[in-house]
Amino acid sequence: MKTLASEMRAFLVDCVSKTGGHLASNLGTVELTLALHRVYNSEKDRIVFDVGHQSYVHKIITGRRDSFDTLRQYGGLSGFPKPHECVDDAFVAGHASNSISVAVGMAKARTLQGQNYDVVAVIGDGALTGGLAYEGLAAAAASREPLVIILNDNNMSIDQNVGGTARLLQGMRIRPGYIRFKRWYRDVFSGLPAIYAFNHDLKEKMKDKLLPVNMFSAMGLNYLGPVDGHDLKELETVFRLARDLKEPVLVHVLTQKGRGVGYAEKHPDIYHGVGPFNPHTGELYPTGRGFSDCFGETICQLAAEQPKLVAITAAMTIGTGLDRFASTYPERFVDVGIAEGNATSMAAGMAKQGLLPVFAVYSTFLQRGFDMLIHDVALQQLHVVFCVDRAGLVGSDGETHHGIFDISYLRTVPGMKIYCPASFSELSAMLRTAVCKTDGPVAVRYPRGGECGYSENHREKEYVLRHGNDLTLVVYGTMVCEAIRAAGLLAERGISPEIIKLGEVGGDDYPQVMESLSRTGRLVTAEEVCETGCIGTVLSARAAEEGISIRAKMLNLGDGIIPHGGRAQLMLDYGIDAASIAREAEQLCREEPDE
Amino acid sequence: MKTLASEMRAFLVDCVSKTGGHLASNLGTVELTLALHRVYNSEKDRIVFDVGHQSYVHKIITGRRDSFDTLRQYGGLSGFPKPHECVDDAFVAGHASNSISVAVGMAKARTLQGQNYDVVAVIGDGALTGGLAYEGLAAAAASREPLVIILNDNNMSIDQNVGGTARLLQGMRIRPGYIRFKRWYRDVFSGLPAIYAFNHDLKEKMKDKLLPVNMFSAMGLNYLGPVDGHDLKELETVFRLARDLKEPVLVHVLTQKGRGVGYAEKHPDIYHGVGPFNPHTGELYPTGRGFSDCFGETICQLAAEQPKLVAITAAMTIGTGLDRFASTYPERFVDVGIAEGNATSMAAGMAKQGLLPVFAVYSTFLQRGFDMLIHDVALQQLHVVFCVDRAGLVGSDGETHHGIFDISYLRTVPGMKIYCPASFSELSAMLRTAVCKTDGPVAVRYPRGGECGYSENHREKEYVLRHGNDLTLVVYGTMVCEAIRAAGLLAERGISPEIIKLGEVGGDDYPQVMESLSRTGRLVTAEEVCETGCIGTVLSARAAEEGISIRAKMLNLGDGIIPHGGRAQLMLDYGIDAASIAREAEQLCREEPDE
Repeated sequence: MKTLASEMRAFLVDCVSKTGGHLASNLGTVELTLALHRVYNSEKDRIVFDVGHQSYVHKIITGRRDSFDTLRQYGGLSGFPKPHECVDDAFVAGHASNSISVAVGMAKARTLQGQNYDVVAVIGDGALTGGLAYEGLAAAAASREPLVIILNDNNMSIDQNVGGTARLLQGMRIRPGYIRFKRWYRDVFSGLPAIYAFNHDLKEKMKDKLLPVNMFSAMGLNYLGPVDGHDLKELETVFRLARDLKEPVLVHVLTQKGRGVGYAEKHPDIYHGVGPFNPHTGELYPTGRGFSDCFGETICQLAAEQPKLVAITAAMTIGTGLDRFASTYPERFVDVGIAEGNATSMAAGMAKQGLLPVFAVYSTFLQRGFDMLIHDVALQQLHVVFCVDRAGLVGSDGETHHGIFDISYLRTVPGMKIYCPASFSELSAMLRTAVCKTDGPVAVRYPRGGECGYSENHREKEYVLRHGNDLTLVVYGTMVCEAIRAAGLLAERGISPEIIKLGEVGGDDYPQVMESLSRTGRLVTAEEVCETGCIGTVLSARAAEEGISIRAKMLNLGDGIIPHGGRAQLMLDYGIDAASIAREAEQLCREEPDE
Repeated sequence: MKTLASEMRAFLVDCVSKTGGHLASNLGTVELTLALHRVYNSEKDRIVFDVGHQSYVHKIITGRRDSFDTLRQYGGLSGFPKPHECVDDAFVAGHASNSISVAVGMAKARTLQGQNYDVVAVIGDGALTGGLAYEGLAAAAASREPLVIILNDNNMSIDQNVGGTARLLQGMRIRPGYIRFKRWYRDVFSGLPAIYAFNHDLKEKMKDKLLPVNMFSAMGLNYLGPVDGHDLKELETVFRLARDLKEPVLVHVLTQKGRGVGYAEKHPDIYHGVGPFNPHTGELYPTGRGFSDCFGETICQLAAEQPKLVAITAAMTIGTGLDRFASTYPERFVDVGIAEGNATSMAAGMAKQGLLPVFAVYSTFLQRGFDMLIHDVALQQLHVVFCVDRAGLVGSDGETHHGIFDISYLRTVPGMKIYCPASFSELSAMLRTAVCKTDGPVAVRYPRGGECGYSENHREKEYVLRHGNDLTLVVYGTMVCEAIRAAGLLAERGISPEIIKLGEVGGDDYPQVMESLSRTGRLVTAEEVCETGCIGTVLSARAAEEGISIRAKMLNLGDGIIPHGGRAQLMLDYGIDAASIAREAEQLCREEPDE
């Protein structure tokens, strides 16, 4: 088993160095996963991985070793658990903190239907900072269901773990609790003489590591641990014990993120999620400047001018580009852990009392703060700035991570302004406007990666990028490049589109688009968002209100369930690339204006 | 002070028996609130009430006694804290569990700006079951800010409090911890000799009631309590102590919901929120049958037929009409506490393993489950039924409670079907369809209260209620009655509208509406939702895609910030009543069809 573990690490490094992916978290859970698979049958039992970026070892030993070089590639294996990929993947994962709730639901389903299988949730201490995990713990305790929660405690979120939850676990890691354990052990097993006898030796070995009185046990969960997460034998023993208790149990496992690979052990934050790298040295291949970098630079400039500016992250300091801000202005920087709801409500409290809070967050994760956006921020029209990173298609992280619902949910928030920069200079300018020149809730939305080729600066809500007469082509953000290319293709076919770039998509007032539509009578929109968030709908409705007759084609990402793959490929598949835009626009022009 | 407290209770009963409102929670916090006001200056200091239905005493003693008979009436006092109503109301409230996060934000704002005031969060044990509260506790501990959290522990949510959090508090209520307290007390005050001396006597009195080692202290909060919440003197003493610690402190206060009024003490769940009642006997004036009653009956019928059906509530058993189900099928009923996110993810886990989960929840509270709807339910297209109660205007609870964002956020969820019954029989029929004849995520959306006068049963996605030629009037749910009345008014003016009632508003395929629009060329929609959720937009866009020239008027609730007041009055104010519909429709017909 030890040999297997070290082979597994070598295989992980070899593969991930080529495909990119989550390295440090998987290196840390090799033994944990192997032990799980010695105790459970993942085809029948349900192992629910939280977040799921630590599921590589599980994938490799459940028949996906040979296709592992397709990881995160278009058409290949997903970097997260996917039930449609393999029956051994119990549930989708990607967003943090849901696994316990899901496992409770599964355990109840099992028991109510009189079935016989085991349910396990595997959750990191980072994900435990999310309120949903706490709700799940409470539900698990209340359920009295046979159910095991494996707490994979590496003392890290993606960045250093923070806050009261981290402190709470810290206390548990060091406190011995043998006397209490002894009493608890006797109570639990007095009704189970066979197991008691079987486990008697075990007790002696574990006595210093088992501590039953803490938050988890106070809630009504059986608590086992802490256990050395790299000791296969001990892990297996404790997992069997937990399984056989037939009650809700939390097993506290201590692991080391990046385990066994020097550079990953040293910098687990950097090797949390990486692109391709040199497997021997760990050297990361350079990536170009991205929107997150531009955000990070601009927010530092603004902070120098605005003493009331405070920046907030939910466990994504590096990812959002806030690392320089964090070291330059530590007293004005808050990392709340994986707790987007709290970040939003806290920002609202700050704004109410006169600060200038900026919450930098990935589009898909801000979904967790939806209610707080409305209730805490918008009802009082507080000036909180949301820097919505990873908007649009994110590529290889896939369906759980694409930032394609934000236009839809942000537009629902009363009074929310939504800026959509298409270039770095627009991001800087719009962020400045959002921070210094607006009030009320405001979002600046920008994609993963860098510019698309457009680097101009047109901040206007509506800007005519190109005049034309045959149709009105409306875009925003980096879709502007597809529109420009589409216009080139259309020109070759003798069609002259008017391209209007939107710098802002809140509200429903678009006079220039309306003026253009009243001339062209044809609307084409191309958007990197789900259908219900599409601005084409808003523009069509506005035209109908103003009595402007139009025919429209709205190109977007449909229902929003989009697999992983390169952005260019996905744009092609969903028909929002330049060629598709040109094709649809041409077809619209060929149709009769009225039937 | 004791006299004041008993006068306050008499005043509360007298007023609330006339206006309706939250009774039991306010009776339980009379002394707590009076003590708070003896220690803090609510004009300068920030007292953040969680949920806020326990803020009546606060309102009465901050200059609003004389207007208290306007409570929850149109144009009168709100039943919740409102900063625009009074400077003593620190923050909006209505949704649970946000107060700690907000208070942390305020405390940080205070400190960073070098200001000098105190910040207090007042949160019930029910609200503590919400994950947001846990995120807030972690943030409070991490902040090290001077900040006091008052835990108002009445061992009740709106219904009986449940789950691991309840159990956790139960442990704290009874365990003495004097030895630990002594050590802690010495450590804390050794650096503060003046306070130490001052509090020395106090220590002796409280020694049995103060327990410092538990979840809160493990997270890094100072813990004081439990304290008798009806002993004014003790409350005041502990509040002063907490304030003077100048650190994050949690004060655990035990109160009795309904205190001092026999019927409310006996049935705190019933007298949590009430309409007008007899103040002497507590007799509630009868209300008619509502959609929640109809839901409660139907779900019991369906449960009898479907052994896999499970019903879930988030602390709203009675409110959602699930009380009969809960007693008839206890093993198939789950109350998760105020934890809508967990309810949604748990339901997804149940559905994945073959159960038929039905989550009954108020429209405004399901906002908390938005991310889980997409991530846990929709990505796998799991069959979870959401019974979305209190959809549309809810009346006297006001802006935090109107269910007017649901169409917008539910439509954003991939594959979500949304049924909109307009009558009881439609609710029954559609619920049956949702449970037995669909798969994937599905919502049934119905309003507070009863039928509008329409009691037919037309379940079709599109049903032509009345044929006409001049315009197409589209409505759904109980707006159907306004449409019928509007049609009557229009007929008097020689205008013949075609009324199409939508039974379902998911998707964007409306062939009958399109056929009608191609004849009338005019669309009027009237909807009890915010503008971005309005189906009129979808229909206009569809028409533009199909090349049908229309002029449109879309009547809805605008940005969605709507105050409290009777539904009829609010409909009038926002122009979605029959007369407004008729007026707008007439105007549309008078305009030229094309400019």
